[in-house]
Amino acid sequence: MEFDLIEIIRERTAQSRGDVVLGIGDDAALLKPPAGQQLVACTDTLVEGVHFPLGTAAQDLGWKSLAVNLSDLAAMGATPAWAMLALTMPQADPRFVEAFADGFAQLARAHAVSLIGGDTTQGPLSITVSAFGFVPEGRALLRAGARVGDAIFVTGTLGDAAAALRCLDRDDPRADALMSAPANTREELLVRLNRPEPRIAAGLALRDFASACIDVSDGLLADLGHICGASGAGALVEADALPVSSAMLTLFDVNERRALALAGGDDYELCFTASVGHADRIAADFARLGFGASRIGRVVAEPGVRVRDANGSMVEPPRHGWQHFAP
Amino acid sequence: MEFDLIEIIRERTAQSRGDVVLGIGDDAALLKPPAGQQLVACTDTLVEGVHFPLGTAAQDLGWKSLAVNLSDLAAMGATPAWAMLALTMPQADPRFVEAFADGFAQLARAHAVSLIGGDTTQGPLSITVSAFGFVPEGRALLRAGARVGDAIFVTGTLGDAAAALRCLDRDDPRADALMSAPANTREELLVRLNRPEPRIAAGLALRDFASACIDVSDGLLADLGHICGASGAGALVEADALPVSSAMLTLFDVNERRALALAGGDDYELCFTASVGHADRIAADFARLGFGASRIGRVVAEPGVRVRDANGSMVEPPRHGWQHFAP
Repeated sequence: MEFDLIEIIRERTAQSRGDVVLGIGDDAALLKPPAGQQLVACTDTLVEGVHFPLGTAAQDLGWKSLAVNLSDLAAMGATPAWAMLALTMPQADPRFVEAFADGFAQLARAHAVSLIGGDTTQGPLSITVSAFGFVPEGRALLRAGARVGDAIFVTGTLGDAAAALRCLDRDDPRADALMSAPANTREELLVRLNRPEPRIAAGLALRDFASACIDVSDGLLADLGHICGASGAGALVEADALPVSSAMLTLFDVNERRALALAGGDDYELCFTASVGHADRIAADFARLGFGASRIGRVVAEPGVRVRDANGSMVEPPRHGWQHFAP
Repeated sequence: MEFDLIEIIRERTAQSRGDVVLGIGDDAALLKPPAGQQLVACTDTLVEGVHFPLGTAAQDLGWKSLAVNLSDLAAMGATPAWAMLALTMPQADPRFVEAFADGFAQLARAHAVSLIGGDTTQGPLSITVSAFGFVPEGRALLRAGARVGDAIFVTGTLGDAAAALRCLDRDDPRADALMSAPANTREELLVRLNRPEPRIAAGLALRDFASACIDVSDGLLADLGHICGASGAGALVEADALPVSSAMLTLFDVNERRALALAGGDDYELCFTASVGHADRIAADFARLGFGASRIGRVVAEPGVRVRDANGSMVEPPRHGWQHFAP
């Protein structure tokens, strides 16, 4: 049975690349990394009920399981190339696998990513994808490197995925209002939860500008905290500068928006630092990319991430982002 | 909490390599594959209750989750280099993680494998490891390539891991006899189940000899069947030539041994084909490696894998190996 499932996945994700000598079908894949480039490798797991709600569509899962990994490559400034897929599911359900493979392939094709291998096993639904890309030697974006005085930026908008989860939660204190929101407003948020767009083009552009970079998966406070920790610095964030979507503006008040944007998680935007002199160029370049980059604060010497409002008062952060195994 | 667990794993598995530019700790790892070599990549998942019994020691899981992947590299004739680990577990239990990392590190050090990244998540116990190695261009061992007339070999002994599972099974028809077997006999089988030795040295030696190669993970019949399928040939196996351990000889009769050796699975030996002219050299080389290689049959034109006994009668195969999702 496993072989049929693998065949379904192989057919639906077919994407040929000259650097894949041997793809799915032997004990391992054979690859030819390009000369003069460094290989960039990452892996991320999505577990049902932990990283996505029960009942998430198989096609969305296929997309998202690859997207969260391509987002890590984007944060390194890498060009994606290959992926491996370990899919664990309760039953050998060909329909589920077909839909999953279609969602995976949609995003893979958009970035010319070839699925080179994997494993299908029986067990509670869980997906581990590994992704691989290339970056010219010495050009990778790291978490370390932010300098005091650098401006802090974030691409796109923050908090939408977490807002979508609130819209799905029948126990939410505002469930009635959220459930009765206009369908297209809810849909806008759900797309951000289920179909995150890895910011590959942004990562490539940032090789020329960024002093440090990370993707926002655990929430801005937590992930900006990683940049600060790795760079031996701190951050001062202007609450009113946090970019939020029109859907967020429609459905949530300022405090809710702030909480979602600071700690919501699952954004898959890039947070990066760059010298202030680059700010205009970054604004122009990223407007052209279609999702923009907002300047949200600056790197300071004092460790830790602090947030202040327009009056200069410090904002008490909600909770410090998504933590696996947090109570 | 996740960061503490990653720190435990990072500390306990530390293994420096010149080709790891940046290991655990950023959004992705940065690697420098050697020039003139092909990269070999594979991934395998172990799920509790499916691929290992509940209550398997954490240290054994750490070892085995890497071993099953290194075994795939061995089957390609690759030299191992790097691994990534995606560990999903019900609670953030530092003791479990320490023991797991120790078992993983024991095998990783033996093969100079550096753990370059991973993910720890909450969920039902499951482990996905990806492994990476190198092979000189055009030298990889493939499943395709067996020629009619080639001899078929297998390293070590077959069926021990499946025999160990029988020893652990209180519902086994011979449970009483197996449970009362001498402790060292049972232990010998359990070590084969929990601490399989990937046949890396064999894979490297076979680059000079083998026409086709696979690792025996799903059972000899199934895996030799893959060689036959990929090579457009068949196989005739001599039942009496199947290599079995002294523990198997002590505990099981000839029919049981045959069934375990043909279809047991979890052996992690290499099955390979080579021209008959190489047989003496292979016997000598593999005796020196310590685990030997037995000649068990030959490649024939008729498709499929058939097994015959000393009288020339065809043996009805038990079941065709381990199949995920099999009923």
